[in-house]
Amino acid sequence: MNTTPAKPFDPVRDANEKALRTAHHLLKDTRFASLATLDAEGHPFASLVSFALDRAGAPFLFVSRLSAHTQHLLANPRAALLVGEPGKGDPLAHARMTVQCLAEPIAKDSDDVILLKTLYLARHPKAQLYADFPDFIYIRLKPLGASLNGGFGKAFRLTADEVRLK
Amino acid sequence: MNTTPAKPFDPVRDANEKALRTAHHLLKDTRFASLATLDAEGHPFASLVSFALDRAGAPFLFVSRLSAHTQHLLANPRAALLVGEPGKGDPLAHARMTVQCLAEPIAKDSDDVILLKTLYLARHPKAQLYADFPDFIYIRLKPLGASLNGGFGKAFRLTADEVRLK
Repeated sequence: MNTTPAKPFDPVRDANEKALRTAHHLLKDTRFASLATLDAEGHPFASLVSFALDRAGAPFLFVSRLSAHTQHLLANPRAALLVGEPGKGDPLAHARMTVQCLAEPIAKDSDDVILLKTLYLARHPKAQLYADFPDFIYIRLKPLGASLNGGFGKAFRLTADEVRLK
Repeated sequence: MNTTPAKPFDPVRDANEKALRTAHHLLKDTRFASLATLDAEGHPFASLVSFALDRAGAPFLFVSRLSAHTQHLLANPRAALLVGEPGKGDPLAHARMTVQCLAEPIAKDSDDVILLKTLYLARHPKAQLYADFPDFIYIRLKPLGASLNGGFGKAFRLTADEVRLK
């Protein structure tokens, strides 16, 4: 007797090559994103952030310790980054991707900081204005996986490895 | 002896009249937002949604039960909605607001549905295409409070009552 339960309908497919290209385009060519964090009570919070990519293709932030989202990430690393570049017309028709991730604050005296600063300023030249403010820190968002929405009915899941650029 | 601990520096102020005007403008004149939810493991998730306002000034969604965010909200009502209308230039220089909220799914046979449908279609006429799809439901997002960011260094908190339109 086959006791395997019927698999529930899952509208989300594993990412194909075209989906991965779209995903990497979004990460490489988007400068701003929405960040979901957890506040001190474990309630979701959402904020606008700028981000860049490290050499391994993981997103990272450059944020003030005074910001709510930074305080959230330092207390609880669980987060998600929604990247997308809305064009003309209905934003829901444009591709966007949710990367679920874990925040890893980078120590000020880490060797990583010089490279992250270079990469961040290349993408956000105006951040030069606050690049040396003492309350700002780099936080890497280590991808756990992602959901790509390529428009109505086109949903794909990506593994942590697939999120990173080749 | 005064044992009151020194109050930590709080860069967030209570909302003044101008901040409330900005907040209500964002809620009234923005059609899309980022929604933060919690997945089955309690990890934050972020997605793009369209929204409208009910008669009491609370945001509500019209979403498919097949969507990840809908499944999250039905299992755990804790959510946040990030509203903002990025204009030209640096999005971080434009006003945006995070409304922390609790999701309240509206029963299909509720009297509310007719009014919510009218309000939703007035703001999103193209939703007529899927207005009667059986998997779509209305979900009210009952505000708990909000954080308004009016650009660098201009942060305000709003109470649940202040989030609602007068």
